[in-house]
Amino acid sequence: MISPESPPLSDTPPPSPARADADLVISPGRLQAFSDGVIAIASTLLILDVHRPSRDEPVWSALRHEWPALGSYVVTFLVIGIAWIHHHNMFHRVARVDRTLLFLNLGLLATISFLPLPTATLGEHLTRQNAPDAAVFYALSMALSSAWFTAFWHHLTRHPELMHEAARGTAAQARRQSLLGPVGYLAAALVALVSPVGALVVSGLIVLYFIVGRRNPASRTGPESLPADAQEG
Amino acid sequence: MISPESPPLSDTPPPSPARADADLVISPGRLQAFSDGVIAIASTLLILDVHRPSRDEPVWSALRHEWPALGSYVVTFLVIGIAWIHHHNMFHRVARVDRTLLFLNLGLLATISFLPLPTATLGEHLTRQNAPDAAVFYALSMALSSAWFTAFWHHLTRHPELMHEAARGTAAQARRQSLLGPVGYLAAALVALVSPVGALVVSGLIVLYFIVGRRNPASRTGPESLPADAQEG
Amino acid sequence: MISPESPPLSDTPPPSPARADADLVISPGRLQAFSDGVIAIASTLLILDVHRPSRDEPVWSALRHEWPALGSYVVTFLVIGIAWIHHHNMFHRVARVDRTLLFLNLGLLATISFLPLPTATLGEHLTRQNAPDAAVFYALSMALSSAWFTAFWHHLTRHPELMHEAARGTAAQARRQSLLGPVGYLAAALVALVSPVGALVVSGLIVLYFIVGRRNPASRTGPESLPADAQEG
Amino acid sequence: MISPESPPLSDTPPPSPARADADLVISPGRLQAFSDGVIAIASTLLILDVHRPSRDEPVWSALRHEWPALGSYVVTFLVIGIAWIHHHNMFHRVARVDRTLLFLNLGLLATISFLPLPTATLGEHLTRQNAPDAAVFYALSMALSSAWFTAFWHHLTRHPELMHEAARGTAAQARRQSLLGPVGYLAAALVALVSPVGALVVSGLIVLYFIVGRRNPASRTGPESLPADAQEG
Repeated sequence: MISPESPPLSDTPPPSPARADADLVISPGRLQAFSDGVIAIASTLLILDVHRPSRDEPVWSALRHEWPALGSYVVTFLVIGIAWIHHHNMFHRVARVDRTLLFLNLGLLATISFLPLPTATLGEHLTRQNAPDAAVFYALSMALSSAWFTAFWHHLTRHPELMHEAARGTAAQARRQSLLGPVGYLAAALVALVSPVGALVVSGLIVLYFIVGRRNPASRTGPESLPADAQEG
Repeated sequence: MISPESPPLSDTPPPSPARADADLVISPGRLQAFSDGVIAIASTLLILDVHRPSRDEPVWSALRHEWPALGSYVVTFLVIGIAWIHHHNMFHRVARVDRTLLFLNLGLLATISFLPLPTATLGEHLTRQNAPDAAVFYALSMALSSAWFTAFWHHLTRHPELMHEAARGTAAQARRQSLLGPVGYLAAALVALVSPVGALVVSGLIVLYFIVGRRNPASRTGPESLPADAQEG
Repeated sequence: MISPESPPLSDTPPPSPARADADLVISPGRLQAFSDGVIAIASTLLILDVHRPSRDEPVWSALRHEWPALGSYVVTFLVIGIAWIHHHNMFHRVARVDRTLLFLNLGLLATISFLPLPTATLGEHLTRQNAPDAAVFYALSMALSSAWFTAFWHHLTRHPELMHEAARGTAAQARRQSLLGPVGYLAAALVALVSPVGALVVSGLIVLYFIVGRRNPASRTGPESLPADAQEG
Repeated sequence: MISPESPPLSDTPPPSPARADADLVISPGRLQAFSDGVIAIASTLLILDVHRPSRDEPVWSALRHEWPALGSYVVTFLVIGIAWIHHHNMFHRVARVDRTLLFLNLGLLATISFLPLPTATLGEHLTRQNAPDAAVFYALSMALSSAWFTAFWHHLTRHPELMHEAARGTAAQARRQSLLGPVGYLAAALVALVSPVGALVVSGLIVLYFIVGRRNPASRTGPESLPADAQEG
């Protein structure tokens, strides 16, 4: 799960002098590659928490009773998929990884690896007495996992030298946009108090918005003016 | 799980102007790399659903009783392996990933990650009362996972500009060929109503056809006239 | 899990004309990358089959009672590690993947993904009544997983055009050497009939031989006369 | 999970003559890529050992009772994350992988794959009678996993020819620094005898030190004087 390095861009200073903490040298490509691995595994493990129909149960009715687990599976899978896309869109603008980015990334990955737990909890409880608690736990976990992106962009806004020169103007706006995730999932947590199913639906709608709804003219001025290899790498 | 980017081909326009939705910039290589990860994990998780002989059971007879689970393991592993091959054969003709391809791919991956569930269900029920239901569920899941490829090719047929120039002529035919999977597995679902074991056998035969039977003269005119790095990347 | 392609070597003909079955175009680098993923996952899943000491058990005595599972874990982990090394050593000599190599590889991966089952079975039964059966099952699974390499080399011996020119002379000898695995594990299966623990020890010794014992002067004439990028890729 | 090779550095001799054991040719990039895969999977599997609140339990109180498992999850995730960083920082100085490095790496990976077991054990026992044993087991496992790095650096100190020329001066110091892990975790094992929770806290503090505390002026003279592609690859 390793990536090739982009050839150094003309606008990037050679990495050496900036790396005072040489014991933590990780290139953006490698960070992405490792992250890809963790994200792919977390999303694939989700299905293990959907109960297989046992030998005594009629298959279709057992699956029908599993709809909360199946619905949670679909929503979380897509949430993680969107996180993967956002992760790439962020790191293809990053020219150099400092210690803060490195450990923000570890925090993000620990949170994404954690998501099978709230997903399984929601699947188990959604049609039962403790559904509101389970849905709040689920929505807060989603909010936390997306809040890391705001932290990333906050750091990048204050340290534009970590980004490819052509992308530096995009950080402030990306930080604003990154609030949609945590704010949306916090709203889902509020909905959960009234309607646990509603919280899952709201989470699904947030994902759907990222999939079909988001057309962002402003970000057009950002990355695609990057040199080709920065975009591709 | 990241891949290097092919150097831009002469026939590919620079990616920038086409990327209006810059927040979703993913290169074909990276999409493939992440997909490889999910596909590899899904196929490796399958074995977790085969029951280990417990300490009170004679080993060989316990394994013999597990033949439905073992047979389902082998067939699903090969189905996923074929999907991986088709995925690569498609994406090595793709020069640019648009939003639709990106989310079709998320759908495909969610379906492949889902396959351990119907596989475990078939393994558990194949020799029991609910075998027809389990086999229909299994065959429909396989049909769904292969139907995504038809959707991919349908989109590529209508947007040839997303493909390497040399590959554009192959999309229509690939779309036709991609129907074999969904049609074949739907046939297996029909067989399941009469003979659940027959459905597993038909699924295995479809895989076998892809492995040994398919010689496709027409596609010869396609990809291999691509420039070498398009094919390789 | 994708790899960059080596730049075409001077001794390799351009891949195009040989690819009659264009629907199965997979480069050696990608085949290795996907295989790396499956192999890494299979070896990491092994620990899931070692029982965690339950809350009522004293930790150390519970772990002591798990020695069969722990021993099987270590041996299988190393067996898979050796398979990974052999896989790379084979594919770095391969210039072009044909349909046979592709499906031999799927077979190898299906077998390696399968290994958690016999490993768990041996761990569960080694100190119990059915230990001989479990050990035979274990050793035969290991024999099967290593026998694929003999099949690979057999195919490569008969199709030297699939290899980098400089490596072609090494196939016949590699085929002979590849017999050590299946023959050794079949011997372990025979030992299992008398002493199940002995079979695990023999398997461990085979691995140990690969790790510390093997110095193979003849193969020195092979790969390292390859051009550097063939070796590295 | 494969990486491209760095172009041969000017100070690295061509790999061929040194590779007497040609059957074990693995490039540093590939070794890292495979290791990335195993490390990513091991860290992602950890969450499977945190009990999901069952349908009869109130969600929040069930999660509160899982704090030992959740705390162990966080600490082990970060320990593995740090190991990943150290692994990269080591291998980006390595120009050539010999047999010893290859098998030290297999040992390291087997140990990291093993960590879900002590983590689950600690999570299960931390608030129970056998907590000291579980915590000693946990801390010793962590000590073992970090001790491999001392072994790596010891080997590299004695075989500087395996390293990029510019990095050779850093091995002795890296070996000294690598003792922090094993010594720190052995101290945690001693603490465990008195306070099991204290052992988890100490382990967390060691990780925290790596994250926020370590500023190492001496290593500044090391890697960053490497040529750029050695650092990046």
